[in-house]
Amino acid sequence: MPRPIASISGFPEWLPQERLVEQLVLDQLREVFELNGFSPIETRAVEPLSQLLRKGETSKEIYLLSRLQGEAAEEASLDPKRLGLHFDLTVPFARYISENAGKLAFPFKRYQIQKVWRGERPQDGRYREFIQADIDVVGQGELAFHHEVELPLVMARALSALGIPAFKIHVNNRKLVQGICQANGVEDVEEALRILDKLDKIGADQVSEELIKNGISESGAATILKMAQISGDAQTVSAALAEFGVENDLFEEGKNELLALLEEAEKRAPGVVIADLKIARGLDYYTGSVYESFIAGHEDLGSICSGGRYDNLITVGNKTYPGVGLSIGVSRLLARMLGEDLLTASRPTPTAVLVAVNDEATRSESNRIADALRERGIPTDVAPKAAKFGKQIRFADRQGIPYVWFPATEEGEADQVKDIRSGEQTEADLSTWQPEAADLRVRISRPK
Amino acid sequence: MPRPIASISGFPEWLPQERLVEQLVLDQLREVFELNGFSPIETRAVEPLSQLLRKGETSKEIYLLSRLQGEAAEEASLDPKRLGLHFDLTVPFARYISENAGKLAFPFKRYQIQKVWRGERPQDGRYREFIQADIDVVGQGELAFHHEVELPLVMARALSALGIPAFKIHVNNRKLVQGICQANGVEDVEEALRILDKLDKIGADQVSEELIKNGISESGAATILKMAQISGDAQTVSAALAEFGVENDLFEEGKNELLALLEEAEKRAPGVVIADLKIARGLDYYTGSVYESFIAGHEDLGSICSGGRYDNLITVGNKTYPGVGLSIGVSRLLARMLGEDLLTASRPTPTAVLVAVNDEATRSESNRIADALRERGIPTDVAPKAAKFGKQIRFADRQGIPYVWFPATEEGEADQVKDIRSGEQTEADLSTWQPEAADLRVRISRPK
Repeated sequence: MPRPIASISGFPEWLPQERLVEQLVLDQLREVFELNGFSPIETRAVEPLSQLLRKGETSKEIYLLSRLQGEAAEEASLDPKRLGLHFDLTVPFARYISENAGKLAFPFKRYQIQKVWRGERPQDGRYREFIQADIDVVGQGELAFHHEVELPLVMARALSALGIPAFKIHVNNRKLVQGICQANGVEDVEEALRILDKLDKIGADQVSEELIKNGISESGAATILKMAQISGDAQTVSAALAEFGVENDLFEEGKNELLALLEEAEKRAPGVVIADLKIARGLDYYTGSVYESFIAGHEDLGSICSGGRYDNLITVGNKTYPGVGLSIGVSRLLARMLGEDLLTASRPTPTAVLVAVNDEATRSESNRIADALRERGIPTDVAPKAAKFGKQIRFADRQGIPYVWFPATEEGEADQVKDIRSGEQTEADLSTWQPEAADLRVRISRPK
Repeated sequence: MPRPIASISGFPEWLPQERLVEQLVLDQLREVFELNGFSPIETRAVEPLSQLLRKGETSKEIYLLSRLQGEAAEEASLDPKRLGLHFDLTVPFARYISENAGKLAFPFKRYQIQKVWRGERPQDGRYREFIQADIDVVGQGELAFHHEVELPLVMARALSALGIPAFKIHVNNRKLVQGICQANGVEDVEEALRILDKLDKIGADQVSEELIKNGISESGAATILKMAQISGDAQTVSAALAEFGVENDLFEEGKNELLALLEEAEKRAPGVVIADLKIARGLDYYTGSVYESFIAGHEDLGSICSGGRYDNLITVGNKTYPGVGLSIGVSRLLARMLGEDLLTASRPTPTAVLVAVNDEATRSESNRIADALRERGIPTDVAPKAAKFGKQIRFADRQGIPYVWFPATEEGEADQVKDIRSGEQTEADLSTWQPEAADLRVRISRPK
């Protein structure tokens, strides 16, 4: 049961065989994103403090930088130009768009897979460095609703491709919720949503109490809690909402969007996307669809893939750039998948063949053989020592290399290859021999 | 002529079409490293200050971290446990080995491709965040010399695979240099090498003067300078060294190693590796072969790929872990290659096909077509708007997408595909159509 090593709390590292899996997982995400029309960007690790603090709330999680030999004044200053490590990929993306809008074609679809850092208190047991994989679509001035349908479906494909078992993407719509709040005389919708977001943690009674304490009527609080219990497919949601008797534009628009999303999702990824009206997402900047994703049996992970529609996050001069995006927290997800043996590498090393060395004087011949195999795309290593063959085979075995190649020892003899798993040894021609197709490259395998 | 954007000096960023090239370059490096028996690791971005300061000298370049909401005492303290960003991949690799030695098989061959950070003064115009690609082999207690031959040849293959034109890997051997110094009564060899390292900058006269100022005899200084002028193939070096009349073990061992390296390199990568006895590498920890690499016509870049043999860098208890490694400074190299149009992407987006949308009511049908193409590994996007076809084609053109797919508008009609570069439009079957092989995936292309 592999677990990350973390000699500094919160900064996980992997052994090579697990890093291999991580790389293959990132490859798989990139493949799905590129198949679906997204272009890659990467942003610098740092942003000025002024950018990092734009969203509020998260300020406690920021790592600030200072140069070891910098001026003393630099330290301890909260100059807005001071640099800090980014804590997500949304803030840098918004900044990147505002800097490069003139050079991009809109709607602009980008993916971004990078490390982020959060200066959490070490005792929280949380990751302080981890990988996020984000996709966003951003329009110039406007962004069609159909992108709010597209993006969760791309993430559904990505999670399926990784072999994540039994996950569901829960969706809600901020306009729908706001419409219901409005009809019930709730003035501070943000605050109501923030309270509602705690439903799973503190329970309905506590939420109701807090809502009322915030000036919401008893019947208003009851309606909000009733709304929060709605979940399911388009038909269920449609029937449940009819009972609310709400009639305002926000409600209608939100309801129509939510139903359209559920219906198209049901066509393209049956059973994956469900409505869940208690999802509020803590962040103020969402304005339409919001998403959270959970794995059955792994609810303790929290949402593994979240996001939503934002209309006002990115502005340049008097232009707005509405967008919709989702983000996968890759590191936590991967740690769980590895830890539960849901994912593993088909072998612990990229190498498929170890070329044996008959004696140090003929190492050059073994090198020549290895180069010829590499030329044909077969990952190959050469034995580090011209030890007895038994020892060279054990070296391959310990590294998980499936084949050992024995160069001929005499003129006119043929080379031989041993599959060290079956023990089968056969003559082999350097220009044509191939490993089993499944052995050529290390792959993700799913033991369960 | 693409240049990185750097709205914060020293922190380069790329537009998507250049990030695509960067990704393909990193893929290519990874491919070569994995073909040659190297396993991947990734280390956390941070190390304790005590680790970062082990090598000395570089202290001025370190970025220290502090938590925005941390205790005031944390700031401005130089507690050895305080975290800083790593400035290379050697320090973290050494620490990783010492922490995980019990779980690794030796000799351990790893590659590592990651960002590093240096807190340079902004006005230096240097990168403060950049990507390094490192390979190292480390043994337990011992490491055979043949790895000192192997590693520069792997890097030669990596640089060739990237299409780097006319590069040479310059090699020298510390033992050889030390043997010559010893025979000439030079006591502080490190200091002599540090002075010699400035030869290109300050010239022979200044170097001689400095050597003599450091207590080296006039004839000793002359010999060191004469040695520094030796360069070329095994034969040239062998002849030149014979004139020195040095007889000591270090000299003999170093000479034999250097000649063996040159001879094997000439077999496996003719013309790439040359001896260059003025290479000293500033770092104290090299003990055998040392390497630097230059591109003809781009000497101003300095060495693009450097490293050497180190015997005493990694110790755990009373065990030593001798190693040999090389590092490519990817970001500077890539910036030059992109800037001079030596590398580009075959198109500016991963997407090969744009599926047109006849009207918004049939978007779902366009989505179905796109999904079917993706299923067959063809990167596909769907037009963002059911505009006039001319507009949809222009959208594809602006993004560099080579094909536009037109869904049939009537029952019984066939779909059509247009290659928007040639204007050719043909009927297409969703289950069999393929783009030109060269168009399937975006690739690196080399315009020059």
